Amino acid sequence: MHLQCPMPKFDFDIITLGHGSGGLLTNKLLDTGVFDILKNETLDKRHDGAILNVEGPIAFSTDSFVISPTFFPGGDIGELAVNGTVNDVAMCGAIPKYLSLSFILEEGLPMTEFWDILVSIKYACEKAGVQVVTGDTKVVERGSGDKIFINTTGIGSMHPKANISIERIQAGDKIIVSHQIATHGMAILSVRKGLEFETTIQSDTTHLNDVVISLVEHFGADIKLLRDPTRGGLASTLNEIARDTQLGISLDNELIPINSQVAAACEILGLDPLYTANEGVFIAIVKPDSADAIVAEMRQFEKCSHAAIIGTVTEDYAGKVLTTNALGGKRVVSMQIGEQLPRIC
Amino acid sequence: MHLQCPMPKFDFDIITLGHGSGGLLTNKLLDTGVFDILKNETLDKRHDGAILNVEGPIAFSTDSFVISPTFFPGGDIGELAVNGTVNDVAMCGAIPKYLSLSFILEEGLPMTEFWDILVSIKYACEKAGVQVVTGDTKVVERGSGDKIFINTTGIGSMHPKANISIERIQAGDKIIVSHQIATHGMAILSVRKGLEFETTIQSDTTHLNDVVISLVEHFGADIKLLRDPTRGGLASTLNEIARDTQLGISLDNELIPINSQVAAACEILGLDPLYTANEGVFIAIVKPDSADAIVAEMRQFEKCSHAAIIGTVTEDYAGKVLTTNALGGKRVVSMQIGEQLPRIC
Repeated sequence: MHLQCPMPKFDFDIITLGHGSGGLLTNKLLDTGVFDILKNETLDKRHDGAILNVEGPIAFSTDSFVISPTFFPGGDIGELAVNGTVNDVAMCGAIPKYLSLSFILEEGLPMTEFWDILVSIKYACEKAGVQVVTGDTKVVERGSGDKIFINTTGIGSMHPKANISIERIQAGDKIIVSHQIATHGMAILSVRKGLEFETTIQSDTTHLNDVVISLVEHFGADIKLLRDPTRGGLASTLNEIARDTQLGISLDNELIPINSQVAAACEILGLDPLYTANEGVFIAIVKPDSADAIVAEMRQFEKCSHAAIIGTVTEDYAGKVLTTNALGGKRVVSMQIGEQLPRIC
Repeated sequence: MHLQCPMPKFDFDIITLGHGSGGLLTNKLLDTGVFDILKNETLDKRHDGAILNVEGPIAFSTDSFVISPTFFPGGDIGELAVNGTVNDVAMCGAIPKYLSLSFILEEGLPMTEFWDILVSIKYACEKAGVQVVTGDTKVVERGSGDKIFINTTGIGSMHPKANISIERIQAGDKIIVSHQIATHGMAILSVRKGLEFETTIQSDTTHLNDVVISLVEHFGADIKLLRDPTRGGLASTLNEIARDTQLGISLDNELIPINSQVAAACEILGLDPLYTANEGVFIAIVKPDSADAIVAEMRQFEKCSHAAIIGTVTEDYAGKVLTTNALGGKRVVSMQIGEQLPRIC
């Protein structure tokens, strides 16, 4: 990627407080860096805000990214920040269109790292088909931040065939997971200071809007809810749904897809993959008749090649999530208490 | 304000890493705190994103706030974060409607401080007539942040009578400033560690959308550009305009309104008020015939009671900003180099 985007000459090798001043250095950083690499018609206007034409109702979602380390196996904070918000907008049943991009940089961040992150943002936006149209850059003194934090906020136009609403969920609906779980969390953990272990596990960060749009096109209202189980993992997301619907969720543990290397790493470290973060996975709660066809459609996409029906919504166990293991034993999966892996996204 | 919003009972006195886990503690903090105090129909749905109906073209703007100290004379980071983005949206000629709200909290932040900031956000939203409709909360370890950083991103609907565009500016247009300058910067500086000095200067943070809407209603296309000169002050904003229009800007130094206490503080500290940050001030570049009437309309608002015409757009000095002093001497006012006051917003 770097070959295609050589770093321009900046006056400084590192980010300084002056780059957040709103004055000359901020302008130089933006002119030579941000505006040039991310350029598009709206951003070029350089107003404090962007003027957009979006038809019909819109979806609007925000996320701040504080992941550590900034560069990790399979991605970096820039790519994650684009994909994360693109996916949150997509989970509303919307087509992501525009992003805002706001940096909080720590004084001393090497300019080369900032550049690599910008390049990564550029390519992630191209892949997901979205544009950065407005932004902000702040700099804090050494020790008041940690290299780089990024906020992205996204706007999408609602897909006319989408009818995503938690209130539509009823007993009998099927729960589908789009791919193998726990990959992102284990990829990050494998490079955490003090915990480094050898593995080839790569983060699953990716944009999911293409899959979601295809599903909504083909199955419309049969898709009742979409969620991406990032922080807190599958368990926390399903618990939120059980709580908000006051229905039960029954999972078959054997059906939940997981990469064998990820499963082994979880076991060694004593972590439950149900609570481990995902970035390129979503769950769909769907009308039972269409569940098999929806899984087949998902599997058309390489990034969803392990899609599977993993459970059912039930009248029993209202507000709870239960898993059944291979021997038929049931256990309640509660919401995550405390923090397994801080700064995972 | 606190009397009206007593703090609920939280399990912890401080923010812990678990509050950013996406699990139980995050949910408790949101249920008891954020969702309850900021509640509205859209936020109550608790999806990852909000579904909004906004008519016509929209304005979209983002800002991250890292101000230090968090609580300062005349306001706090919560109020600032609402007003700052509301004003950026308003400067597009739009009516601000919806905000996203994203926190990056440092482990150890006292829960009482977080609550005070939430209350402040609530009241600032009410005053500005906007709703928080979606959000995010992350927590970083002690020493990787500084108490609290806030990103707000705003959406507004374009006012049908607005025609704000830098391309419409021409020689002869008048430059109006809405109120006394440099107040925010000096209020913050007066409480900075190592610099504390006794003063009654209060930040001018306020929402300006009411003034802007009134002006656009009455003067429509006669208003060619609106900008709020925050970081970098009046000088940096006017330099950006001179650069982007390739016209000159001629200011009469004697006409720029400034509070006498603020002016004295700037003089003692050797700071130029033209580079000092504002929060409750905007500049308008307007058709010359309407300039006096626009100033009169602004002055109807207490927060714009010192509105004044401070200069003219010229063919001369293309790309530059000049001031004339009382003796007729001219000097070039360049864009701010380096950083006068880090973390001013």
